[in-house]
Amino acid sequence: MTNDLSQTTTDLFERMRATNPLVQCITNYVAMNYAANVLLAAGASPAMVHTPEESGEFAAIAGALTVNIGTLSPNWVAGMTAAATSANQARKPWVLDPVAHFATQYRRDATANLLKLNPNVIRGNASEIIALGGGQSAGQGVDSGDPVEQAEEAARALATTQNAIVAVTGEVDFVTDGTRSVRIAGGSDLMPKITAMGCALTALTGAYVAIAPDQPFEATIAALTNFAVVGEIAAKSANGPASFMTAFVDGLHNLDAQTFNANARITAQ
Amino acid sequence: MTNDLSQTTTDLFERMRATNPLVQCITNYVAMNYAANVLLAAGASPAMVHTPEESGEFAAIAGALTVNIGTLSPNWVAGMTAAATSANQARKPWVLDPVAHFATQYRRDATANLLKLNPNVIRGNASEIIALGGGQSAGQGVDSGDPVEQAEEAARALATTQNAIVAVTGEVDFVTDGTRSVRIAGGSDLMPKITAMGCALTALTGAYVAIAPDQPFEATIAALTNFAVVGEIAAKSANGPASFMTAFVDGLHNLDAQTFNANARITAQ
Amino acid sequence: MTNDLSQTTTDLFERMRATNPLVQCITNYVAMNYAANVLLAAGASPAMVHTPEESGEFAAIAGALTVNIGTLSPNWVAGMTAAATSANQARKPWVLDPVAHFATQYRRDATANLLKLNPNVIRGNASEIIALGGGQSAGQGVDSGDPVEQAEEAARALATTQNAIVAVTGEVDFVTDGTRSVRIAGGSDLMPKITAMGCALTALTGAYVAIAPDQPFEATIAALTNFAVVGEIAAKSANGPASFMTAFVDGLHNLDAQTFNANARITAQ
Repeated sequence: MTNDLSQTTTDLFERMRATNPLVQCITNYVAMNYAANVLLAAGASPAMVHTPEESGEFAAIAGALTVNIGTLSPNWVAGMTAAATSANQARKPWVLDPVAHFATQYRRDATANLLKLNPNVIRGNASEIIALGGGQSAGQGVDSGDPVEQAEEAARALATTQNAIVAVTGEVDFVTDGTRSVRIAGGSDLMPKITAMGCALTALTGAYVAIAPDQPFEATIAALTNFAVVGEIAAKSANGPASFMTAFVDGLHNLDAQTFNANARITAQ
Repeated sequence: MTNDLSQTTTDLFERMRATNPLVQCITNYVAMNYAANVLLAAGASPAMVHTPEESGEFAAIAGALTVNIGTLSPNWVAGMTAAATSANQARKPWVLDPVAHFATQYRRDATANLLKLNPNVIRGNASEIIALGGGQSAGQGVDSGDPVEQAEEAARALATTQNAIVAVTGEVDFVTDGTRSVRIAGGSDLMPKITAMGCALTALTGAYVAIAPDQPFEATIAALTNFAVVGEIAAKSANGPASFMTAFVDGLHNLDAQTFNANARITAQ
Repeated sequence: MTNDLSQTTTDLFERMRATNPLVQCITNYVAMNYAANVLLAAGASPAMVHTPEESGEFAAIAGALTVNIGTLSPNWVAGMTAAATSANQARKPWVLDPVAHFATQYRRDATANLLKLNPNVIRGNASEIIALGGGQSAGQGVDSGDPVEQAEEAARALATTQNAIVAVTGEVDFVTDGTRSVRIAGGSDLMPKITAMGCALTALTGAYVAIAPDQPFEATIAALTNFAVVGEIAAKSANGPASFMTAFVDGLHNLDAQTFNANARITAQ
């Protein structure tokens, strides 16, 4: 399975770059610039369109939608809802990133309502996925307080309940559709020291599911592998989080299929 | 004309840096940080003041106003309208950047209303300017799907109808007042790979028209030449979009009049 | 006093990094990404939670709250008010950054109302602090038009009236509790050329008061010293504002207690 997935994800990588998919990102204020630059460097075309007056109309045009609740407020939640509803109607895939959804009642309610709109992929850190499964997480704010391994059971259960792909990202990532599961190694321990890294990965997952809506499991693995491979390369020349960020975005731009394939470390579970 | 314009724009460059003009930017969430850093590095003083409770009052204080509809919503459109109205009353120049105005009905309506408030300069990519002239553009999202040359006729017509300077930016930029026209060469093919580059250029155009409100044609050419010259220099040391961005902002800061003049490539049409 | 403060602030620096305090930042759109990256690199955990539906609930969870009015609007002012009120109730310290509060009536009113909620620390540039004391400042927008020295009297008066720590940042910083005062040297003349540097410093001040709520004077000095020390180091390798920013964030991440202590330049007044 591993070798198969390395080749499949490499093929998806090449197809994503050749297709330059239009990805609608409704993300938080912190992440908007970085996520857009990550998508452009990786080969996609980002569009930040959030207000309910137009978010639904745009979701029907875009190849995929990504929703991140990092800095939510009523107008934004309305925009997310309109966009996700429209994506469903237009049969466009959408990805949910429930940032710190457990922190406040407002955030819990918004997340519960978004889950009813059937995201095709859910990506979070370990604390977020554990809490989504009803477990007790160690997270307080946006940073994870739990290791990925501890979220694997919750991820499988959530994938089954939601009929969605669930990705838990951290030191070693975990992706499951409820039945199949993989771990993806790579990246760098500088990545949690950079804000919006997870949000940008959610956006990139949108680029992959846009070009492979019938393969959301493989598309999600491809997006995470893309990050893991480039993160590992970028770490080699970084002196700290900011120079890592520069090397990472440059690395996304410069990555080729051969390097992707040679450095992908996907392990079936 | 070319030699004259090189000298005129170099003079405007020196004057802008000496004056440190205060530029009110109502721009999108993606661009705000980058546009502010670009203005500071180039020698201007940015102020992001958007809400209708104060945007009009501030427009009378600032040297110029720039409006970019990238991530618009009702409160922001109200703020843009109040600011542009006030700028007109105070005889301060203002610049419109109609990002992806063709993408949704909400965006089309907002743009039509802003155009009624007589922007002194309109800057967009080729797809945006073609669509503003009523033509069929290949654009879907915020990235241009058309070459600049194809937008030149629409730009001239729009400049005449709106009695405004129209700038189409891309591989080679085009600026017209309806009668006179120039092309500006330079820049780098990495520039479309960085989000908010056009938005930042709109903001910088505001800095130039602030110090030369009676020469909006020359001021717009100066802003675009500033970007083209520094973009060409930055590309030499860049390994990808992120290191380009660093070199570009550093380059704006370090540019002197002699280098500006020696590298300006403005051609009258 | 100087040597004592160097040691005290070095101790606070070590404690802050060991504690990884959760800091709620209600800041402007321009600063959000940069402030979050600065906090992460410095060793804190930022959370941007602004909407009144949840900002109060979150303020009771966070270690400290920071409020910056850079790009305010009604929903944000409501969120700031709810959060500051909750911080007071939960006895969590909070820091106010009254960006360009003198520029418009809306901004003056919002600032007056926030001051009634008793911020523990107020940080601004010289023009802002002079104007808060009722004096005539030379500022127009967000950039200071006055030297720090000219704001020292206003700062002392404001500290006494508000029963708060007041920090004036500029070429040489000034911190006072109304009775005691210090100057902090260091930094770089590139720092005012980077947007949101002051906003990020406000956020970092939140991280320090979170771990030393009973020592707001020393905590504020520690935050400013942290910036001054790293700014001076970063300037050595910078070619302009953008490469400075990269070196600065990397430098925050790499700073150790010995370097902090050896380079702290705090002078009692």
